[in-house]
Order: sequence, then C-alpha cells, then structure tokens
Amino acid sequence: MKKNLVRPIIGITMGDPAGIGPEIIIKALSLDEIYDTCRPVVIGDSQVIDKVKSTLNSDLKMKIIQDVTDADFVLGNIDVYNLKNVNIENLKMREVQEEAGKASVEYVLKAVELAVKNDVDAITTAPINKEAMNRAGFKYAGHTEILAELTEAENYAMMLIAGNLRIIHVTTHVSLKEACRLITKERVLNTIKLVHTGMKNFGFEKPKIGVAGLNPHSGDGGIFGREEIDVITPAIRMAEKQGMNVHGPLSPDTVFLRTNNREFDIAVAMYHDQGHIAVKMIGFSRGVNYTVGLPIIRTSVDHGTAFEISKFRLGTADPDSLIEAVKLAAKLSKKG
Amino acid sequence: MKKNLVRPIIGITMGDPAGIGPEIIIKALSLDEIYDTCRPVVIGDSQVIDKVKSTLNSDLKMKIIQDVTDADFVLGNIDVYNLKNVNIENLKMREVQEEAGKASVEYVLKAVELAVKNDVDAITTAPINKEAMNRAGFKYAGHTEILAELTEAENYAMMLIAGNLRIIHVTTHVSLKEACRLITKERVLNTIKLVHTGMKNFGFEKPKIGVAGLNPHSGDGGIFGREEIDVITPAIRMAEKQGMNVHGPLSPDTVFLRTNNREFDIAVAMYHDQGHIAVKMIGFSRGVNYTVGLPIIRTSVDHGTAFEISKFRLGTADPDSLIEAVKLAAKLSKKG
Repeated sequence: MKKNLVRPIIGITMGDPAGIGPEIIIKALSLDEIYDTCRPVVIGDSQVIDKVKSTLNSDLKMKIIQDVTDADFVLGNIDVYNLKNVNIENLKMREVQEEAGKASVEYVLKAVELAVKNDVDAITTAPINKEAMNRAGFKYAGHTEILAELTEAENYAMMLIAGNLRIIHVTTHVSLKEACRLITKERVLNTIKLVHTGMKNFGFEKPKIGVAGLNPHSGDGGIFGREEIDVITPAIRMAEKQGMNVHGPLSPDTVFLRTNNREFDIAVAMYHDQGHIAVKMIGFSRGVNYTVGLPIIRTSVDHGTAFEISKFRLGTADPDSLIEAVKLAAKLSKKG
Repeated sequence: MKKNLVRPIIGITMGDPAGIGPEIIIKALSLDEIYDTCRPVVIGDSQVIDKVKSTLNSDLKMKIIQDVTDADFVLGNIDVYNLKNVNIENLKMREVQEEAGKASVEYVLKAVELAVKNDVDAITTAPINKEAMNRAGFKYAGHTEILAELTEAENYAMMLIAGNLRIIHVTTHVSLKEACRLITKERVLNTIKLVHTGMKNFGFEKPKIGVAGLNPHSGDGGIFGREEIDVITPAIRMAEKQGMNVHGPLSPDTVFLRTNNREFDIAVAMYHDQGHIAVKMIGFSRGVNYTVGLPIIRTSVDHGTAFEISKFRLGTADPDSLIEAVKLAAKLSKKG
C-alpha cells in the first residue's frame, strides 16, 4: 500500500465519446505498466466506458466515483469519475455530434479543476473532435487553447515527443497561410525561451536548441523567402545574447533528422506539419504531446478521434500513444 | 564487350565545382555496381576531378574526352567530358563563387544537348548552388527549371523516391507563402495527371495516388484553412472522373507514412518540405529525385552542395544518393 502513495495520480480525460478515446483508455488501463508508474483515474462517462468494454469483451470491472479520494487505483477495476453527460441511446460511434463535442470539453474542464486543486498530479487527454466541439459552441482550435484559457497561461507551446526526437512548435492549429503570417521575431523568441525553460523538466539545464527555417532550404539566402533573414535569425541572435544554446535557422528537411540523431536536444518547428510529419515518419504510434508553459502538467495523445479510419473497425485502435502519454505525465509529475 | 552495348549511357553532371559533386562522383564511379548497370560519363572539368582525386587519394585514372563515342566506360578509368571551364588556381572549395555557378550550369546545358541527340540515354545531376548560379546571372530556382526551359516542357514536376516512398510535388522551390498562393485546382489536377502517366515508367499502369492536404489535419473541415474544400477536393474529383485512382485530401502528417507502408503507390505533396521532411526522416542518404514530364530522362541527388557542413571535412561526403540516382536513371532508360 505504501508504494501506491508515491505514485502520481493521473487524470485521463475520455475525449470525444464517439471517438477512439474510450477504447484506447480501456486497453491502456488493462496494463500492469500503467498501474506500476501511476494511479490513473478516467474523467468521463461510465455508460460509454461500459458500452465500449462490452464491444471489446474486456474483463475490466469499473468503479464509478464522484471524488478522486474514492478511487481504488487497482489494476482490473477502472476508476471512472462520472460526469454522466452522454445519452448512450443517442450516441452514434465514430460520428461528429454536438452532444459528444460538448461532453468532450466538459471532461477537460473537470480535469483542469482537479489539477488546479491538486486532486490529480497531472492530466493526460484523449482525442477530441474539433468539428463536434465547434458545433457545440466551443470555438477553440484544440485542447491546448482550452487549457491555456482556463489556466490563464499567456506563453505556452506544444511539444511533440517520440523517442529522442523532441519538437516544439511556434504555431500549430492554424491554416498554413496564417502560420506564415504568425511567424514574427517575438513569437519565435518566445518559443525559444519557453522551451529553454521547459526542458528543465526533462533534465536539461541548458538544452541545445535547433531552430528550423520556414521556407525550403531555409530560403537559400533569401531566394525562396526572407523570413529566415528578417525574422528567425534576429530572434536566434537575441536568444543567444540571453545565454541560450540555440542554432539556426536550419534547413527544415534535415533539422528533425539531426535532432533525432541527438545533434540537438530539441528542435523548434515553425508550423504544425513540419514537426508532425517528422515525428509520424519515425514513430507513428509512439508520439506524445506535452504542453509547455501551463501551470499544470498535461500530456496528450498524438492522434485524433479517428472517425474516418476506424468506423467499421471498432476494437482496432492502437493505445500506444496514450500509454506513452500517461507514462510521461507520471514522469513529469516527479513523483513517479 | 557485347554486354557493354546494352547498358545505357548515363551522363553525370559534375555540379558546382566547389561543392561535393566531384567527390561523390569519384566515390560512386569507383564501384562495380555502377559499371554493372550502366556506362557512365562525367560532364565536367578534368582539372577539378584531378584535384579532388588527389585529395581523396583515389587510384582512379581519368580519360579526357570531347565526344561520348571516345569514352571507354571501363571501371578504374573515369571518362570525363571536359568543358575546361574552371580556373583551378582561383577555385575555393566549399564557397559560393560566380565562376563555379556559371560552370555548373554549363554542365547541365551540355548534358541536355547530349541527351536530346541521344549521345547519352539519361542524365543524372550532382548538386548545384543556387546562390552561385544566381550570382553568375542564371536566375533559375534550380536544375528542374533549367531543364524544363531547355526542353520546352510545360507540364513537369519533381518526384522524390526513397525505397517504397514516392512523392510528387505540386510546388517546390518557392517560399512557403508563395506555395500557398500557387495551390490552384489546375496545378493540383495537372500534377495528378502527370504522375498518373509518369508512373508507367515505374511499371504502374493505374497507380493508386494519395493526395495530401495543405493545412494541418487537411484543414479539419475548413476550420484551419479552406484550400482542401475549395481547391484540392475539386481537383481530385475531376481526376477521378477521368478514370484515375486518386484519394484525398489526406492529412499531411500521415499520408507519407501510409504511402511508405504501400497503402498508396505515390503521394502528392503540396509543397517542398511536406515531401522532403518525410523522405529525409526515413532514408536521408538514399533519396533520389526524378523529373516527371521531361522529354529526356533525368535523375538527381536529393541533397545540396553541402558547403556549410563539409567545409572542413573534405572527403567525408556520402555518395549513396548519387549511386541510387545513377541506378534509377539506368533502370528508367529501359536498357539497363
């Protein structure tokens, strides 16, 4: 029993009830390795968990709780903090639905509330569907923006992690055109500073940071775009002056490989797909997100609700990213 | 001797004399496997080849020729079609120089001339430096644009190949901002048609084509950009109507992995780094370019002159991409 007390409590949000969240949670929480590193509690809806358990022919039992202190954290008996916000009769699996979008946001709100009052040590989020969330009236781009607003974080960024490869993004869930507009000296410098500090949690006092350019071949001396000359290089020079170990702008098509080969401790990506293409090519199922700059610890899976690919294949979703995300949350809680 | 006659003749341009072109050519042309698949001739400058041979302590001999019919194509005695256009005393290795830029373009002009009159069956190009070329007054974005102009090709595109992963690009050597502007229904449809036809050379009569979106998550239903809805989907629908096996728009951060896993025969990338990040992550040294839509067969290495990383490490350049490029040129010549 004593061992239990030092393992961190991780609140795992269920994600969109119609998505693969419930399925990957049930699969992950069937494993020794999760309970060995943390005390997990699912923040979701018990009827959805029950239904998906049946679909999967899972032997797991379920304890429905309304307070984290009621949780048992015992392998084989999943603790579900029940928000009772899904009408199971109406729910259509793998479809965009307003009610499911609303429910998915409510899990996040509750998780943040529990994290802020230290009922949980960290949170890990299963995927939500942006279209469903938007239909429900929540006009966020994603989890990160909800979390930032709730915790009043002004300077935050998404870090992607797959094995050796760590990447932080200057911009994420915006169109590519808008990402180009958002690449300013201030934003690039902010991101570098954020990750310089954020890497302390990972054990790096002075991380070696590789900064990607925006354009092909980093603009090739201004021939294919001037952002490297006008914006990114000045930001790097300022970060250097402030004592950071920062390099670039480096050609976007090699910086991530060089980071994966440990030439840099972390790479700074200018836009979502720069980093995400790189991570998915080397470790699709192992990718994990971590939000740097929040007052709470939050990790996340690196995939969506998978409505489009798993509609007719219930039971085939891969829980690897969730397993890694929960483990990382535990590690960063520094109680693990 | 009879075997010699059926192996295709490949003209290999030397690239920028100050770059890694001469070095990787000497390394590649020291190998049985090159002479087993083709009859290579270097289009370059004999003094540069000679100097780099010395640096590398290479045992290769050199035969200087002014006409392809004079070449011996014998392993151990490299045939150099000598353009005598470099002042070896003035040449500074691994630096941007106008004279070297000019020379690098002249090798390409000669190679195209030889290919058009069938003196060579295909050409493979070593890297040029765009800044050097531009200083010399050639305002091209790269090789492909020179080749298209010389051969009067109007509809062409760059294909990237690394193992199973084949990618064709709608845009390449332009700024990211400009790439966003250039994504039109016509360009996307053109590229799909081009690759549908071009894949015949690779043995695919009706290739399965996966088309990437432009924006993160392919815009997530219009939330992060509308190009998928307004431009890419209509182009895909038109290609389908014309009988092509085309799918998408697919999330840019998974389509390349899915193609590498053989779900598609080729992926269509919207911009340079979408495809190049994917290829470099899985096979940095093995990547090869092929230009689809030219009246001549042209392959190329998938890297630059490497001024910045090999300046103090002459002799360390990796010839793998050139070796693969020469072999692919031989294969596509259909005499190999």
